[in-house]
Amino acid sequence: MQSQPVGASPQHAKKKGILERLDAGEIVIGDGGFVIALEKRGYVKAGPWTPEAAVEHPEAVRQLHREFLRAGSNVLQTFTFYASEDKLENRGNYVAEKISSQTVNEAACDIAKEVAKGGDALVAGGVSQTPTYLSGRDEAEVKAIFRQQLDVFVKKNVDFLIAEYFEHIEEAAWAVETLKESGKPVAVTMCIGPEGDLHGVPPGECAVQLVKAGASIVGVNCHFDPETCLRTVKLMKEGLEAAKLKAHLMSQPLAFHTPDCGKQGFIDLPEFPFALEPRIVTRWDVQKYAREAYNLGIRYIGGCCGFEPYHIRAIAEELAPERGFLPLASEKHGSWGSDLSMHTKPWVRARARKEYWENLLPASGRPYCPSMSKPDNWGVTKGAAELMQQKEATTEQQLKELFKKQKFKSNIVA
Amino acid sequence: MQSQPVGASPQHAKKKGILERLDAGEIVIGDGGFVIALEKRGYVKAGPWTPEAAVEHPEAVRQLHREFLRAGSNVLQTFTFYASEDKLENRGNYVAEKISSQTVNEAACDIAKEVAKGGDALVAGGVSQTPTYLSGRDEAEVKAIFRQQLDVFVKKNVDFLIAEYFEHIEEAAWAVETLKESGKPVAVTMCIGPEGDLHGVPPGECAVQLVKAGASIVGVNCHFDPETCLRTVKLMKEGLEAAKLKAHLMSQPLAFHTPDCGKQGFIDLPEFPFALEPRIVTRWDVQKYAREAYNLGIRYIGGCCGFEPYHIRAIAEELAPERGFLPLASEKHGSWGSDLSMHTKPWVRARARKEYWENLLPASGRPYCPSMSKPDNWGVTKGAAELMQQKEATTEQQLKELFKKQKFKSNIVA
Amino acid sequence: MQSQPVGASPQHAKKKGILERLDAGEIVIGDGGFVIALEKRGYVKAGPWTPEAAVEHPEAVRQLHREFLRAGSNVLQTFTFYASEDKLENRGNYVAEKISSQTVNEAACDIAKEVAKGGDALVAGGVSQTPTYLSGRDEAEVKAIFRQQLDVFVKKNVDFLIAEYFEHIEEAAWAVETLKESGKPVAVTMCIGPEGDLHGVPPGECAVQLVKAGASIVGVNCHFDPETCLRTVKLMKEGLEAAKLKAHLMSQPLAFHTPDCGKQGFIDLPEFPFALEPRIVTRWDVQKYAREAYNLGIRYIGGCCGFEPYHIRAIAEELAPERGFLPLASEKHGSWGSDLSMHTKPWVRARARKEYWENLLPASGRPYCPSMSKPDNWGVTKGAAELMQQKEATTEQQLKELFKKQKFKSNIVA
Amino acid sequence: MQSQPVGASPQHAKKKGILERLDAGEIVIGDGGFVIALEKRGYVKAGPWTPEAAVEHPEAVRQLHREFLRAGSNVLQTFTFYASEDKLENRGNYVAEKISSQTVNEAACDIAKEVAKGGDALVAGGVSQTPTYLSGRDEAEVKAIFRQQLDVFVKKNVDFLIAEYFEHIEEAAWAVETLKESGKPVAVTMCIGPEGDLHGVPPGECAVQLVKAGASIVGVNCHFDPETCLRTVKLMKEGLEAAKLKAHLMSQPLAFHTPDCGKQGFIDLPEFPFALEPRIVTRWDVQKYAREAYNLGIRYIGGCCGFEPYHIRAIAEELAPERGFLPLASEKHGSWGSDLSMHTKPWVRARARKEYWENLLPASGRPYCPSMSKPDNWGVTKGAAELMQQKEATTEQQLKELFKKQKFKSNIVA
Repeated sequence: MQSQPVGASPQHAKKKGILERLDAGEIVIGDGGFVIALEKRGYVKAGPWTPEAAVEHPEAVRQLHREFLRAGSNVLQTFTFYASEDKLENRGNYVAEKISSQTVNEAACDIAKEVAKGGDALVAGGVSQTPTYLSGRDEAEVKAIFRQQLDVFVKKNVDFLIAEYFEHIEEAAWAVETLKESGKPVAVTMCIGPEGDLHGVPPGECAVQLVKAGASIVGVNCHFDPETCLRTVKLMKEGLEAAKLKAHLMSQPLAFHTPDCGKQGFIDLPEFPFALEPRIVTRWDVQKYAREAYNLGIRYIGGCCGFEPYHIRAIAEELAPERGFLPLASEKHGSWGSDLSMHTKPWVRARARKEYWENLLPASGRPYCPSMSKPDNWGVTKGAAELMQQKEATTEQQLKELFKKQKFKSNIVA
Repeated sequence: MQSQPVGASPQHAKKKGILERLDAGEIVIGDGGFVIALEKRGYVKAGPWTPEAAVEHPEAVRQLHREFLRAGSNVLQTFTFYASEDKLENRGNYVAEKISSQTVNEAACDIAKEVAKGGDALVAGGVSQTPTYLSGRDEAEVKAIFRQQLDVFVKKNVDFLIAEYFEHIEEAAWAVETLKESGKPVAVTMCIGPEGDLHGVPPGECAVQLVKAGASIVGVNCHFDPETCLRTVKLMKEGLEAAKLKAHLMSQPLAFHTPDCGKQGFIDLPEFPFALEPRIVTRWDVQKYAREAYNLGIRYIGGCCGFEPYHIRAIAEELAPERGFLPLASEKHGSWGSDLSMHTKPWVRARARKEYWENLLPASGRPYCPSMSKPDNWGVTKGAAELMQQKEATTEQQLKELFKKQKFKSNIVA
Repeated sequence: MQSQPVGASPQHAKKKGILERLDAGEIVIGDGGFVIALEKRGYVKAGPWTPEAAVEHPEAVRQLHREFLRAGSNVLQTFTFYASEDKLENRGNYVAEKISSQTVNEAACDIAKEVAKGGDALVAGGVSQTPTYLSGRDEAEVKAIFRQQLDVFVKKNVDFLIAEYFEHIEEAAWAVETLKESGKPVAVTMCIGPEGDLHGVPPGECAVQLVKAGASIVGVNCHFDPETCLRTVKLMKEGLEAAKLKAHLMSQPLAFHTPDCGKQGFIDLPEFPFALEPRIVTRWDVQKYAREAYNLGIRYIGGCCGFEPYHIRAIAEELAPERGFLPLASEKHGSWGSDLSMHTKPWVRARARKEYWENLLPASGRPYCPSMSKPDNWGVTKGAAELMQQKEATTEQQLKELFKKQKFKSNIVA
Repeated sequence: MQSQPVGASPQHAKKKGILERLDAGEIVIGDGGFVIALEKRGYVKAGPWTPEAAVEHPEAVRQLHREFLRAGSNVLQTFTFYASEDKLENRGNYVAEKISSQTVNEAACDIAKEVAKGGDALVAGGVSQTPTYLSGRDEAEVKAIFRQQLDVFVKKNVDFLIAEYFEHIEEAAWAVETLKESGKPVAVTMCIGPEGDLHGVPPGECAVQLVKAGASIVGVNCHFDPETCLRTVKLMKEGLEAAKLKAHLMSQPLAFHTPDCGKQGFIDLPEFPFALEPRIVTRWDVQKYAREAYNLGIRYIGGCCGFEPYHIRAIAEELAPERGFLPLASEKHGSWGSDLSMHTKPWVRARARKEYWENLLPASGRPYCPSMSKPDNWGVTKGAAELMQQKEATTEQQLKELFKKQKFKSNIVA
């Protein structure tokens, strides 16, 4: 492998499309999570998790795209997560009215396209699950919501489309059907675990329905850690094989360890979203994930919430032997800690080797904290009254009722 | 407090100097750690930890400065950590020869000054401990190294100077004496814990020597978690009181929990530097730290390695009642999780309150990992042959000898 | 409930038989584990785990029986675990030759019968899995081994019989068939988890085969913690219901937490058998178990390895409302810590209440240890050459080969 | 060393006295804790922790003595802990009135003397701290209480005397002075840690006062784990050396890990006394302790609460090379797990070696529990009103006030 890391292909040539790459057996590296990363940088509000920073702070969004590209991402997703009209006006959100969904989606496309020019990455327009569906509205209404975003993606001519972060197969299939109207390739990921969607449809059956709806790439994203996501994709793969259907596989897990999650994933963990730090995966955890994903036959390998640029770089470094090149960011990262040979302290230089990092079990530094949590388990899903969304801000009275309902769990001190 | 968060003072007015602020009893909020944050973003190499990104990737450095400013920092430190000539050529580092120390220091000053214009922040030029001292060279040689960087800071007219990250009081005092030659105010922090410097000088005595050497602000940075750092600063404060000396107090701890560290701090933990994730502090840990620092009489309150923009914002939010305003980044952060009232799931909305986050004991999600580690404890410090630095890259043979010497510790699986 | 705790029934009356009790809906409380308890007291050797103490130290065996009786046990199992001829001569064991299996079995019966006179307890003769089966011998040979012990039980006229600790359904069924030859009621427990027997037969199917073989009471013992055992018994119950078969249910789990076990149970945990201490369940864990077992419809509720007299007492105390009386040992134990009201320290008196103990999450006091282990997973079972037993002591050479084969696992420090 | 383990000396010869042994440099092995062990066996009530079982259930007390003797104890302490008149009538205890202190003390002496005949063990009469002292009564009253027990010990002619479990040096010295009136050798242990007695007298100063009061053997017992106790004895040793005083050293720690304890020891841990299981030390922990105690110069090495017979055996096995013989109970225990060579499963036979057990970090099996607790820290000691004792049972009203005062701590779920 060349010692000077470079991007894969000449930047002036026409880029190969997503299906062209996957059909040829290439590994496609996704990017990481924007809302969690930009929340920590100060540009996204936890709670709504909406992407108005594309308009308000484009330089921050642009820089994060640049970092993922440099780390090895072959896909830059437009920062349009939760950028549907209904979400931007949900529970008091000002964005729909003050900025507008169209403006946010357009700005996000512009930024991603501009950065993508700097390397070998495609731009994917993304949609995600909607308050409209959660509130029980019908297929036409939900599809209309998706179509608003799709119009922008078509106008901006993104390379392909991703429907991601769906808890219900019904809504995911509607999203795929809508996106397919554009004629562009469609990838789809659900945020489900091995137990299946929130109405109990198993992963294998979900995958079958999604391919039938028109998706060329199916998999999972978010909600669970790499290990759990791979178990889910494996079930999807088996479901497709049983149905004699073909599709490329994709995984974009959390960068948080979630062995204690139930069916609804990390949202239910008591630590979500402001105390997830001790669960953050290391770069070595990611290398293990990348290898296992590859061995499972997954060729679109990325991350979701918690994945920072160095996590994406770890995917690219683990799979460098298969791909034949390293990402640009590896000019600042020796494989398996080898740059520690430049450290001033001899006992740190002694850590400059794979055997050390591969076998380390990192301590939490938190001796008063447990290693696992009991997730909230309210057992409500689409169809339950508590999940009806509203345009008005949550009232003090509504909050008080929720506080009363909240049972303090295993690792809360009263 | 005004609902629309703003920076503290009009940006066109002349900024008050660091001592002017501290003498008036104002709280000064420092910034966070650059080398760890930029390593994760792909621009700094662990091992050497040198700041050539100021030249190579100025947009990445600029963006991080912007984020800290937005999060509430009143001081932007030039990204000149380990930017001394001898460090930039240590163990095979190419920066001294290919770029030059002067170029790096100048670029770092330019970036910090440019960003500082956008808010109420001062620019501080920073120096840190040197390979020259560690290799046993004399006072004149060490001071000459510091003076090279100081010349740039004077030329670029930074607002004040910080000597930071010193393990030995002797070298720290030399640094202060050198920086004082400029006539600018000098702050100094040592990376020591309650046991004192690596030659056994207690924190109280260190503080006394530093004030006598000319420092106006003394404290600690790096190497230990917030709790440990505050215990150390308390000992410094008591030492100064006993000696009837006056100085402002400063703390810039790690954003990693380190209850298991020995005298040399987190460098010795088996997790350093690539598996520290489970130790990262939450924003709530930082609020506790900021309050305790304030109660102890510390008025220059910042962070070091691991402190991301949201950690700095947590300091600014905790001390907003005293200061009367919130940082800009709080427009994207409700106090104590209050924005979760906008979340779609009712059990997450139920977390929108201080009582919840203040009492949560976050799980690690790592049931096969321990909560504490046994640090490496090679017991060598300045004067030991193993600490002699060299211009040549570490050889394979040298590494092999170190690997043999390394005893696998408590949480390494062989 | 009467304040003076007493045994359930007048001791001079003829005791009701085991099926008489269970058919009447009574709760029958089993006893706890002998080999682990007597190993700690100095009378049983770990490794062989054979019960020659019945001959060598009858006073120690008698005392442990007395304690269980006092704690509430309605069944005293003869201390005949692993007292089959082939086990008493396995791998260098001296007992078969120096004492004889018959002598051990007779002594064990005598002791149990003598102690049982002191309360309302039945005596159950017990057999368990054999080296003969593990070494691949045929049905006739295996049954002949069981029949040797059965002859003693019939001669000594025990009240009923228990076939316990079977990893393979085939051998368990053979044991039941053999014991049924006596005409006495037969209970049978397998040491399996929800994944079923070591050849993959699911628990429900195992239960069906056992009832068909003649067992009146079926369930699980040993190898897994209470929670896991209850899940397994639930599967057995469902299997019986599906097959329209009737049997009483029984559970005698470990008193060790084993959330990390694989199919083969606690034997495979790296801590077995000399470092299981941190896994020992509290009396409150046992009260929870007793309640859940009762709710599941189990009426023969006892324990296995690790269950000390106070754990059995906890079953009896939890179910006192249903039974209407407390065990004798409760004269030295207030419900839910109420006797702490007599403690000299006020903060300990403050712990004299159910709410306190029910909600406590006890710390391990071991901050350098993990909370879970990776079990050994050699994947060999009956049929594998490594499981052939031998009369000769294991040789040094055999041990060395095993040491080499042993891969050091997650929480071993090399 | 002989392969057939035996007791140390011929049993018909006159036994050597305690000082004769220690003066000759012999190792004397103490016994373990009675109240905790007998509570689990069903004969002692937690809360009062009084030893009326010596009268009510002599066979249970006798058996425990036998087990310790067999495990290697050279001293059998009379089961007279908390057998002072004032304790037996404290807070509603019935023993003083229904049985009498004299009867309990006499019965305890008889049992210990009878069992001691079966091996090479001395009998030590023991007194401990009193409610009278805690309630603030004067020296004469406190000494009168001790003298009541002493009268029995003299009449029963025990071999020597132990004053144990004292939190205040003043009362400990009074105890020693009283016991010295008998002319018998006096040993004394305080239940203090490195921070000293509850009024702040450091361990070194405590030791000096105790030797001056007449003690020939000084040390610590109970309240802290082995590691902490050894640190305390080391401070005592240094105190005696500085004062040029001579005494034999003694340690009888808890068999519970207590790294998180404050000054008052394990009583303050939220787990005391009914959820200490995860803290129980392994036999390997005890071997480490025995070696370190020996290296520190301690020659009276035993245990306190939590020490079961197998823990005492571990002391005897670790120090067998120095002593030249093994205890009787080692006939059922191979050194460092060597008997596992007789196990049926090959992966368990692979554990038959020192390297394995010495390096194992045992998991807790409790992933929802932390590794350390925050102890209660009410900060009251002798002199505080809350510590006044009373003959009447604690009232419901008094309990309710305590419940209110109790702040739920880190690992309690509300």
